[in-house]
Amino acid sequence: MKSFFQPASIAVIGASAREYSLGGQIITNLLYGYQGKIYPINPNYDEIKGIRCFPMPEAVPGPIDMAIIIVPAPNVPEAMEACGRKGIYRVIIESAGFAEVGPAGKELQSRCTAIAAAAGIRVWGPNCMGLVDIPRKHLFTFMHPKVYEDGLIPGRISLIVQSGMLTAGFLADLMGERAIGVGKACSIGNKSDVDECDILEYLLQDEETDSVALYLESIPRGRRFMELASGAAKPIVVLKGGKSSAGAKAALSHTSSLAGNARLQDSLLTQAGVTIARDFQQMMELARALAMIPQTPRHCRVAIMTFSGGAGILSCDLLDEHGFIVAELSFETKKKLAGVFPDWLPASNPVDLFPAFAIRGPLAAYEGAFAAVVEDPGVDVIFLHYFAGLYQSFEGLKRMKDMADKAGKVIIIWVIGLRESVRSFKKDAQALGIPAHGELFRAVECLVAAANYQPRQLAAAGPPAAAKWSLPADAGDLLAEGKHTGIWDEFASKRLLEKINIPVVEEYLAWTAADALTAGRRIGYPVVIKGLLTGEVHKTESGLVCLGVATDAELEAAFADLMSRLRGQGRIVIQRQLPVEYELIAGFLRDDQFGPCVMFGLGGIFSELQRDVVFALAPPSREDALELIYRIKGIKLLRGFRGKAPVNEDAMADILVNLGNLGAACPQIEQIDINPLAVSQGYPVAVDATVVLGGREFY
Amino acid sequence: MKSFFQPASIAVIGASAREYSLGGQIITNLLYGYQGKIYPINPNYDEIKGIRCFPMPEAVPGPIDMAIIIVPAPNVPEAMEACGRKGIYRVIIESAGFAEVGPAGKELQSRCTAIAAAAGIRVWGPNCMGLVDIPRKHLFTFMHPKVYEDGLIPGRISLIVQSGMLTAGFLADLMGERAIGVGKACSIGNKSDVDECDILEYLLQDEETDSVALYLESIPRGRRFMELASGAAKPIVVLKGGKSSAGAKAALSHTSSLAGNARLQDSLLTQAGVTIARDFQQMMELARALAMIPQTPRHCRVAIMTFSGGAGILSCDLLDEHGFIVAELSFETKKKLAGVFPDWLPASNPVDLFPAFAIRGPLAAYEGAFAAVVEDPGVDVIFLHYFAGLYQSFEGLKRMKDMADKAGKVIIIWVIGLRESVRSFKKDAQALGIPAHGELFRAVECLVAAANYQPRQLAAAGPPAAAKWSLPADAGDLLAEGKHTGIWDEFASKRLLEKINIPVVEEYLAWTAADALTAGRRIGYPVVIKGLLTGEVHKTESGLVCLGVATDAELEAAFADLMSRLRGQGRIVIQRQLPVEYELIAGFLRDDQFGPCVMFGLGGIFSELQRDVVFALAPPSREDALELIYRIKGIKLLRGFRGKAPVNEDAMADILVNLGNLGAACPQIEQIDINPLAVSQGYPVAVDATVVLGGREFY
Repeated sequence: MKSFFQPASIAVIGASAREYSLGGQIITNLLYGYQGKIYPINPNYDEIKGIRCFPMPEAVPGPIDMAIIIVPAPNVPEAMEACGRKGIYRVIIESAGFAEVGPAGKELQSRCTAIAAAAGIRVWGPNCMGLVDIPRKHLFTFMHPKVYEDGLIPGRISLIVQSGMLTAGFLADLMGERAIGVGKACSIGNKSDVDECDILEYLLQDEETDSVALYLESIPRGRRFMELASGAAKPIVVLKGGKSSAGAKAALSHTSSLAGNARLQDSLLTQAGVTIARDFQQMMELARALAMIPQTPRHCRVAIMTFSGGAGILSCDLLDEHGFIVAELSFETKKKLAGVFPDWLPASNPVDLFPAFAIRGPLAAYEGAFAAVVEDPGVDVIFLHYFAGLYQSFEGLKRMKDMADKAGKVIIIWVIGLRESVRSFKKDAQALGIPAHGELFRAVECLVAAANYQPRQLAAAGPPAAAKWSLPADAGDLLAEGKHTGIWDEFASKRLLEKINIPVVEEYLAWTAADALTAGRRIGYPVVIKGLLTGEVHKTESGLVCLGVATDAELEAAFADLMSRLRGQGRIVIQRQLPVEYELIAGFLRDDQFGPCVMFGLGGIFSELQRDVVFALAPPSREDALELIYRIKGIKLLRGFRGKAPVNEDAMADILVNLGNLGAACPQIEQIDINPLAVSQGYPVAVDATVVLGGREFY
Repeated sequence: MKSFFQPASIAVIGASAREYSLGGQIITNLLYGYQGKIYPINPNYDEIKGIRCFPMPEAVPGPIDMAIIIVPAPNVPEAMEACGRKGIYRVIIESAGFAEVGPAGKELQSRCTAIAAAAGIRVWGPNCMGLVDIPRKHLFTFMHPKVYEDGLIPGRISLIVQSGMLTAGFLADLMGERAIGVGKACSIGNKSDVDECDILEYLLQDEETDSVALYLESIPRGRRFMELASGAAKPIVVLKGGKSSAGAKAALSHTSSLAGNARLQDSLLTQAGVTIARDFQQMMELARALAMIPQTPRHCRVAIMTFSGGAGILSCDLLDEHGFIVAELSFETKKKLAGVFPDWLPASNPVDLFPAFAIRGPLAAYEGAFAAVVEDPGVDVIFLHYFAGLYQSFEGLKRMKDMADKAGKVIIIWVIGLRESVRSFKKDAQALGIPAHGELFRAVECLVAAANYQPRQLAAAGPPAAAKWSLPADAGDLLAEGKHTGIWDEFASKRLLEKINIPVVEEYLAWTAADALTAGRRIGYPVVIKGLLTGEVHKTESGLVCLGVATDAELEAAFADLMSRLRGQGRIVIQRQLPVEYELIAGFLRDDQFGPCVMFGLGGIFSELQRDVVFALAPPSREDALELIYRIKGIKLLRGFRGKAPVNEDAMADILVNLGNLGAACPQIEQIDINPLAVSQGYPVAVDATVVLGGREFY
């Protein structure tokens, strides 16, 4: 990857002397700051902007590290072959007209990939804007030079973007209005070869990058991405486009991506320690805050220093809403603050500095109050509000940052004011490593992300515990003897679950009324009687479930009724009627991009209101399984309520681990649903389940 | 109120020749554009900035419409008296040091109010920044002149802000970075006399104001505010500070406000047609969008026109998430678009214009595509993405707005790009009446608000239906014979509910085991037996509830057990055990700021997960009650699920109307809780209830 970012020489195939053609803009951009050799390639020119132009790559005398191709799509294979002949092993194809335009383009793209493979070339693109490295002034892109008219702000956040125009427009916005600095920005387009995983891997090692933000429309190597994210020592922020069906359809026509199951992807990425963004600028502000804010306790105590009582109040509301604590200042701190404040105002948090401005002058008031607050042992974070432009420039900020670092405290800033002053204040804050935001809620949102973020550790040496699992012989027998494809009925499904130690409800098949009575008496009334029809998922609505059967007579009648409804098909089961506190759902599935996964969530009536399900890669370790349980929104319910026992977390984790192990070990299992997984006196029990075997080949 | 906004002459009591004193800044600000007479009042000067200065108001020869007072707080009563003598009937006290600083300040404020009342003066403030009218260039405020260094942008959104510094800083931010125009901005401070209701009333009539945004820390005249909002023909956006307990504490020390019950306030305001904001800039963007976007269907169909496929995809995701429909373009539209696009790209929504830029030029591509899309009968809204600064200025925008108006379609814009270009584009768009936003999610958020907004109509002539209600005589008897204060047990509470036609569960008191058996047999087993202890709200946890009592013997045993637990206190009730589908909650309460209210929401296990309750003023009309029901998040549940019957909405509305009527008619009722209000076979039935009588005087 390094050759893409720091080549000693670059050939531009399709360079042009026309200033505002794409081939012309690439030359202009290279001249902006690239120090290596530039070789324009175009048979129609002898020189471009004073640089010698060659008719073809082979005509260049010296070696060439990298080529940027910007000729029309149909001419790209020829250019690729020329690269191969010249021995150029890194190529960025910035031309459009490939897989994104339909079958013909797809075919063209395959030809390029084949040429590259044969010649040993790594290909970046096609249909992309290449890359920029702002601190190095490397602009390997055709973006319009006007984009950086407002200036480029170097930073330590790197970007991977699966969208062309967006990279450019977005950069202009970031460095203009928002004053956010950027390190490397990579536009990956159709990712025919180099993809987000390749670049992420590089950026995670890059000493000039503190955090990575990605806008992606697909993650085809989802498993690899998870591996990288789980082992990353830097924050990663992902904004995933194409979550809705309309968005996914658009994604398909845009960069020919498959968007995948949004809920599953977000959930998996969260488990891997990735922060999920919802919009472009938010993604960058999150990435910046995560890079700058050191690890912070989840319910950290925040002191607010403000020039506006109203902003202080609203900050309290926003912090409180997100589970932060508005710090109680110590007696010591209040005493120190008293020196800064007028007599009539007892200092408290939020520290409203406005009344103190008149006494000490605004900047001295800020610094004086900060010095008091930063020492308070009950304060973890200082949320500073600033009005830029009204006073002279704020040199005290550096001293405040030093004080905070020394005390191990975090600073985060909300700044409004005059345009130029705000921008230069933001740049100063950024250079000092303090995130400065233009809206209160965004600052709080970033603080939430920072408090939730925990750098991942690679698993300790040795295979994870899950790897030791082996399929019980009797479970293997069931899978072998059963039908090898299709949907199993709930009785068959639970027999398999039983073999891997998942608790299931007591139940017996009944072929005759006598069987039914035997089962009913054995279980003890009341019982449930169900008719099982393979593939019938709405048993209740179809009248195939009879609850609360309380006597022999009722059972006989219900049996007769079900027999007539089933008309000789399916089978009948008699089940214990459990006292159920509430219902959960657990499952296993295979995702096209991420492979085998387990799922956990609230079931029953709750799922009528709001989906509350989470996912992890399968097989999960015990710790993964516990974390998964803790991640549902309804975790409060599981911890016991109104005198009900909390759910047994060990038993629940066992179910998820065993489900994941079974699914991962048996590629023929496409899906398992336990729904409901009833919680009865604190213990989860599978009441209904469905196993689906498939014929597909999986990971 | 008009005299505050357009006085013919203004006295500035406490004017100063020192440029950057508050009294000096007021003079500078008045000179910015105020055309009336200015009378500086200060015994130490003969003139200030070339204007004759008077030692006291009485020394001014002509009449004075309004005074701004900026002398130190202790001198304000004296200044007020001088105003009275001079016959100045409008006074803005901008000095601080009153109710916000504690008891002494409160006392000072009362003195000023008393003087004003005696002299017939309306007082604005104290502890405020006064008001500005930007289109008129009236700056009746001490804010620092630097605040408007970036220029003032006139607009048609007016602001009421209960926070001083914020008004100023916020204005700078709005007109600087955000390029949002403002009409009148009113800083109301301690609102000792003039409050948000007075100003709102004025602004709702003001022909220069299209929408009103309010930042408030308290709404003491909540009932009046609701009346104004419910009858408003303009959008109102409210940002309420002090929602959290920490925020409320800060609010108390800041502008001496009582923050009230945040959930109740938000819910009431929503029912009155107010849009709720969560942050300052969002409040303004919402107010602007609501003023500019005509009424739009809730699930409107949106066409996206973008320069970036990625932004198009993300827009689909955000729109979809909020219940909008990504429009399916007609065959006709696609045919027209084909003329703008290259052959290889079939036009669809989102319309990604980038490929068309090369063929027609960017601006012509925009206009051409817009002309096609705006005519599509399947499109309600066009969400336009623009990159400002790359091309020459976009004159086509006006033509596009005209086309949209003609076709009755809405335009909303997302714009990024170079700084100056973005700002001037935003100003142009604003002048055309098109909201232009800097973040995608914010544009979508504003579209959501616009789609949810419905201008309120004043109730038709004649008293509302609810007014005809009168307390049934037997209910009155119960209230008279019962204890006159305190908490009623559930049996007594339900007897009262029964009298006003609220369905209650069948139940009987039992003083002896024989009573219990009679009741059990009459109801039919299984039954519930409960011990009632006044004030005991955790009956279940205290072992005072026994469910599923199925036989005479079980009932006798349970009765004996309860008798021993109760130790001669309380009483015992035998209840029918209803088959319950799920549990709701309904209630009545009195709020300090808003008076009598009814409450409705999900109960039981749901309330363990997430509060889902809504409020309306009592007594609600039938329509209000139905609307209240529709407003809970869990409305889906009430509409039937898994073959369960939907809840009977008429029966539910009756309960709320009757509850509200009872509470509103009986000031001694402080609170009524029906919890749970069980839904059994589609009908709501009160299973447990508590009536609380209070001794307080209410509305």
